[in-house]
Amino acid sequence: MQIHGLLYSNNMWKVKMFFCIIYLTVLQKVAECALTKEQIRNMSPSTRPACQPGAETSAQQVDTTQRLSDLRSHFQSNGINGYIIPSVDAHQSEYVSEYDKRRQFISGFSGSQAIAVVLEDKAALWTDGRYFLQAEEELDCNWILMKGRSGTETVPSITEWVIAELEGQNGVLGAYPFLIGSDDWIKKDKELVENNMKLARVEEDLIDKIWTTGRPVQPNTDIHGMKLSFTGKSWIDKLTDIKEEMKEKNVDALVVTSLDEVAWLSNCRASDVPYNPVFMSYAIVNRKADTIRLYIREKNAKLLKSRDPKMSTDDLFDHLNIGRDGNCTSRKDGNKICFEVFDYNDILDGVRELNSTVNKIWISYGCSYAIYGLINKDKIYQANTPIALMKSVKNPVEQMGLKKSHIRDAVALITFMAKLEKQVQEGEFWTEMSAASDLERHRRKQDLNRGLSFETISSSGYHGAVIHYAPSNKTDKQITTSEMYLLDSGGQYLDGTTDVTRTFHFGSPTDYEKECYTLALKGHIALTQFVFTTGLKGRELDALARQPLWKFGLQYLHGTGHGIGSYLNVHEGPGMISVYHPTWKHDEALSENMFYSIEPGYYEDGKFGVRHENIAQIVKAETKYHFKDIEFLTFNTVTMVPYEPHLIDYSLLTKDQVEWLNSYHKKVQSTIGPLIKNDPLASKWLSSRTGFVDMVSNGIHLTASTVLITVMASFLHIYL
Amino acid sequence: MQIHGLLYSNNMWKVKMFFCIIYLTVLQKVAECALTKEQIRNMSPSTRPACQPGAETSAQQVDTTQRLSDLRSHFQSNGINGYIIPSVDAHQSEYVSEYDKRRQFISGFSGSQAIAVVLEDKAALWTDGRYFLQAEEELDCNWILMKGRSGTETVPSITEWVIAELEGQNGVLGAYPFLIGSDDWIKKDKELVENNMKLARVEEDLIDKIWTTGRPVQPNTDIHGMKLSFTGKSWIDKLTDIKEEMKEKNVDALVVTSLDEVAWLSNCRASDVPYNPVFMSYAIVNRKADTIRLYIREKNAKLLKSRDPKMSTDDLFDHLNIGRDGNCTSRKDGNKICFEVFDYNDILDGVRELNSTVNKIWISYGCSYAIYGLINKDKIYQANTPIALMKSVKNPVEQMGLKKSHIRDAVALITFMAKLEKQVQEGEFWTEMSAASDLERHRRKQDLNRGLSFETISSSGYHGAVIHYAPSNKTDKQITTSEMYLLDSGGQYLDGTTDVTRTFHFGSPTDYEKECYTLALKGHIALTQFVFTTGLKGRELDALARQPLWKFGLQYLHGTGHGIGSYLNVHEGPGMISVYHPTWKHDEALSENMFYSIEPGYYEDGKFGVRHENIAQIVKAETKYHFKDIEFLTFNTVTMVPYEPHLIDYSLLTKDQVEWLNSYHKKVQSTIGPLIKNDPLASKWLSSRTGFVDMVSNGIHLTASTVLITVMASFLHIYL
Repeated sequence: MQIHGLLYSNNMWKVKMFFCIIYLTVLQKVAECALTKEQIRNMSPSTRPACQPGAETSAQQVDTTQRLSDLRSHFQSNGINGYIIPSVDAHQSEYVSEYDKRRQFISGFSGSQAIAVVLEDKAALWTDGRYFLQAEEELDCNWILMKGRSGTETVPSITEWVIAELEGQNGVLGAYPFLIGSDDWIKKDKELVENNMKLARVEEDLIDKIWTTGRPVQPNTDIHGMKLSFTGKSWIDKLTDIKEEMKEKNVDALVVTSLDEVAWLSNCRASDVPYNPVFMSYAIVNRKADTIRLYIREKNAKLLKSRDPKMSTDDLFDHLNIGRDGNCTSRKDGNKICFEVFDYNDILDGVRELNSTVNKIWISYGCSYAIYGLINKDKIYQANTPIALMKSVKNPVEQMGLKKSHIRDAVALITFMAKLEKQVQEGEFWTEMSAASDLERHRRKQDLNRGLSFETISSSGYHGAVIHYAPSNKTDKQITTSEMYLLDSGGQYLDGTTDVTRTFHFGSPTDYEKECYTLALKGHIALTQFVFTTGLKGRELDALARQPLWKFGLQYLHGTGHGIGSYLNVHEGPGMISVYHPTWKHDEALSENMFYSIEPGYYEDGKFGVRHENIAQIVKAETKYHFKDIEFLTFNTVTMVPYEPHLIDYSLLTKDQVEWLNSYHKKVQSTIGPLIKNDPLASKWLSSRTGFVDMVSNGIHLTASTVLITVMASFLHIYL
Repeated sequence: MQIHGLLYSNNMWKVKMFFCIIYLTVLQKVAECALTKEQIRNMSPSTRPACQPGAETSAQQVDTTQRLSDLRSHFQSNGINGYIIPSVDAHQSEYVSEYDKRRQFISGFSGSQAIAVVLEDKAALWTDGRYFLQAEEELDCNWILMKGRSGTETVPSITEWVIAELEGQNGVLGAYPFLIGSDDWIKKDKELVENNMKLARVEEDLIDKIWTTGRPVQPNTDIHGMKLSFTGKSWIDKLTDIKEEMKEKNVDALVVTSLDEVAWLSNCRASDVPYNPVFMSYAIVNRKADTIRLYIREKNAKLLKSRDPKMSTDDLFDHLNIGRDGNCTSRKDGNKICFEVFDYNDILDGVRELNSTVNKIWISYGCSYAIYGLINKDKIYQANTPIALMKSVKNPVEQMGLKKSHIRDAVALITFMAKLEKQVQEGEFWTEMSAASDLERHRRKQDLNRGLSFETISSSGYHGAVIHYAPSNKTDKQITTSEMYLLDSGGQYLDGTTDVTRTFHFGSPTDYEKECYTLALKGHIALTQFVFTTGLKGRELDALARQPLWKFGLQYLHGTGHGIGSYLNVHEGPGMISVYHPTWKHDEALSENMFYSIEPGYYEDGKFGVRHENIAQIVKAETKYHFKDIEFLTFNTVTMVPYEPHLIDYSLLTKDQVEWLNSYHKKVQSTIGPLIKNDPLASKWLSSRTGFVDMVSNGIHLTASTVLITVMASFLHIYL
């Protein structure tokens, strides 16, 4: 799945990233000069195209007048002049439950990333380039739309805006401290304090107060223990390794605040958040204790009813080593290590207790200010958690699971695509939504499937250029033989998470479409073939994937690759292949058995989008020489879906790249072919794409030598 | 000139970099586990090969017993248990005057980068991979040699070592605060304090106290104002721009501590430091004042005798707008802006005064702790200075000067090389030193030359693998037709600084030598041809240059490129093309009209070294498309010296790369050819290298198409 530079799973970086978003640095030199306060104060919804006199109101626009008025009615009693509403939940999750979509509620904007700030007389929403068009359509004219990187010459940062608007008023900006990461909170507060203002804790979220009718229920799904045959490592072994890391860093306790980290640690899954098999939770690991404290909602009910025979042979009591009485007791295997389960809301007490009993507490960068604020500053050790790194390096069982799930996922995608292509070409009526829905049906039929890993990006023609487009009833568009079709989709399987993008044209693509498809493909192959030393970070590989496009003056405004979970979040840190990733300081180096997406693309506004995305395992590279026994790494693709030969301009590829394509297609054919042999349509679709490409007959390398051939051929004719 | 990841001109990064040196990260995964204190305490000189019983004492070894004893005799009176002696001077310069070679004096080790720490009973020296062999030879057996990156599983950091050695003693490590950068000081002190030790200021340097006989005199050369026709911008205009930047950042004053920054700001040059045309100095810019304070040695004498008609039409009084009475008065042009000149040692008073009169003071990261310590913490604004960035972006006059000086430099190098090759092939006796010396003579004959920009790296055979090798009487080696010869050299010219590396073989290279030469060349060309967006930092391009070597399992353990001064330091920040550059956080993005070296290489220990180094200007790239008007950049090579065709394995190059070579050689021939037409030997040497390479006849792309040619040729035969 395509990601923007700012996206990340499982921690507060997302929020911070949003504020530092670099979208525009690729469009223009970053000017040192910021906007003046005067210029900032002059910003108004009235300059938006949608708010011009006579402009037609889009069907997507949401009327937020009453909501804003309700929200503002709480300002005075809380002693604030404004309120920030971020996109994330208390765990700084990238995807949030419907219940947690506070920012969507207050603003009407439904995109995944944005931050809203409401002052007494103005409201503004900051989002990035993926969402400019959508935000323009969905926001009503109460809202100023801040497009792109904050703190630049065109867009003020949130604090710059607040400072300009509340100048001379000793303004107080309020925020619910669970929804803001600690470093972001500290930075904003500092900037405000320097201007005689401040960021103030609002202990009861104001959106919770006003969003009383029509709000979805709090997520609260069953939690299932996972078989060792899926996780490859028991939580007891994980705990041992974590404690080792804690010892190394001389910390006494670890507060786990990211949902996927708790899920990974406990080897449990649920479905509290759409597409992410996690559950609302915290955990505390105390190095000296035999127990892990787990904080979940409705613990008693969940411990009792939590068995899925496909996932687990244990019920949750057994899985977590808890006695039937709910207490932590010596268990069947004599192992005293167990989970102690507490109510989700007891986390604050848990952290307070920790703060008074231990000396050093490990929290992630993404830890909310609510948790952070309970710990003495000198007791805080803030860094990527040991879980984040361990989770990103897949164990042999997870590696195998990811490969197998990608094979099943390819079967689903290929059988679906064969059908879709045929029917579209025969004139049957297919739309983005019907395609997404039928593809989901194909995925769900696969063994071990547990739904999708994200909302399918099924985009026809110009919708393909809206990078994070997801079709809706309001936008649904027919898939035809005259436009490109971009399909970015993935599934959740008990043994792995998948994410794949392919771009199609069911008719005759233009030369320009082929050129763009091929340039993005060149970058995709170049990065896949890249050989690199250990210790490199993702951003240091990114330019490789972009080079073919850059040489032609083209660019894509999103990251090139993200980590992926093992039946967990589709975007997983702690690392990213992107030069435009603002929190790269916290990135970990690429290492063996991490799995990354490789997904360059190209987007022509109003016309089409191209993206090629595979998931690849980082493996040791085989090299001719071995200088000082340095370890070299490269990528091994686990995605098993062919490209579209009729969209490739082979003259743009190097010999190496054509050879890679041939060898990849051969592997796809031999892996997937036998699995779909009973489906003649899919078999034909696959084999029509995986045939060997002969470089000469495809006019590759029209060099002196081919000219020579021609000359000699003429000679031959003469003599014949 | 080749640089290690840790090298930089003009600030304290060098010292810090040394401590964070990343040499080993490319050799091995960085293990989380450090050495135990026990292991650290067991380190001893006796494990060094040179200190084994019966080992022969190298001729280069320096007896430091008396020096160490002298130094230690001052410990008690200063209340310290140990003393740090870094390589740098008070300005954290990369190159220092002979007077400032304190670390060389105390340790005997003459390499450019190392840090020595002397305790009461032990002494240790930390250096990096370039210098392991040399340090092993030069250090006597008083010294423990710490090889490589400190704080790893094989090498303790300085503080780790001190903490292990002085455990339980409340140890005090002393240092002369002028020689340690502020952030490095703070970090070390913190680490020591956490272990009940501390870093203490020693107000009079102990090396100054004991190095009384045989010490070179303090550098104190004449200072010359530079003509506008060389600098392209008056210091008054520079001052205006600097004040603008200061206003932007809301700082009141700027303390300029780097020697090349003072030289750039004042448009003055001298020769206080070998190879670097700088003078011992500080400057203070006060945003509200019309004067710049300049701190130099023997100011009165220098103001009086400082005219070089080639450099300047003014004397220094006029150049700096100072009245003949030494006071700052209204000058001939009615401009009241002038320099006020103070004695070098008055800088401390100057900073103290500043601290008591202004609110915010800008200092560089490299500012010494001595200066830093005089400023209230809340008044410090620490960042790359505005001078560092302005200096790195060359103005049109500087751009032209760099190009012209590289042309003259190429004439010197080419005429010399033609002679050297012929005479070596004819059996005449040439050594590394005689070659370096004759090349210097050729350079000095060139118009506007002011000597060399660094000590020539003239290395034959296995010496080429010693990355920063400089020949000496002790190591001098004959240049023959049976070994590779690596020549890295550069000149200082009034209009520019040059730096070029070429690798030769005057006989028949082996296939392996050709393979290595070609792979490094592939990387060199790939980076030169690279097209990139604005905003990228050097580290994000580095992998491009390394990829061809990495694919073959080869690597070079140094950076790929550095900035270069305009008649200033050969290594200039603030940026570097290197993934192994530890202080990249302070790097500035690459931008138009910066000039960088591009210098990948390969080094086979005990056999040979290969390096290709050009200086290239960053220019706007011309592209087929122009996505969203993003600006693309690329490199334009200003070095004008051909490569060695007989060392190139053309089958390893792509068509693009051969085309680049052809076009580069054509440009070199047409630029340099006319300038050497009266030298038949040089003309022949040049033209034998710059001829057009026909890809077919060189067997490039032995693809299906060439096979086809062969098949068709056979047919032709049959039919003929």
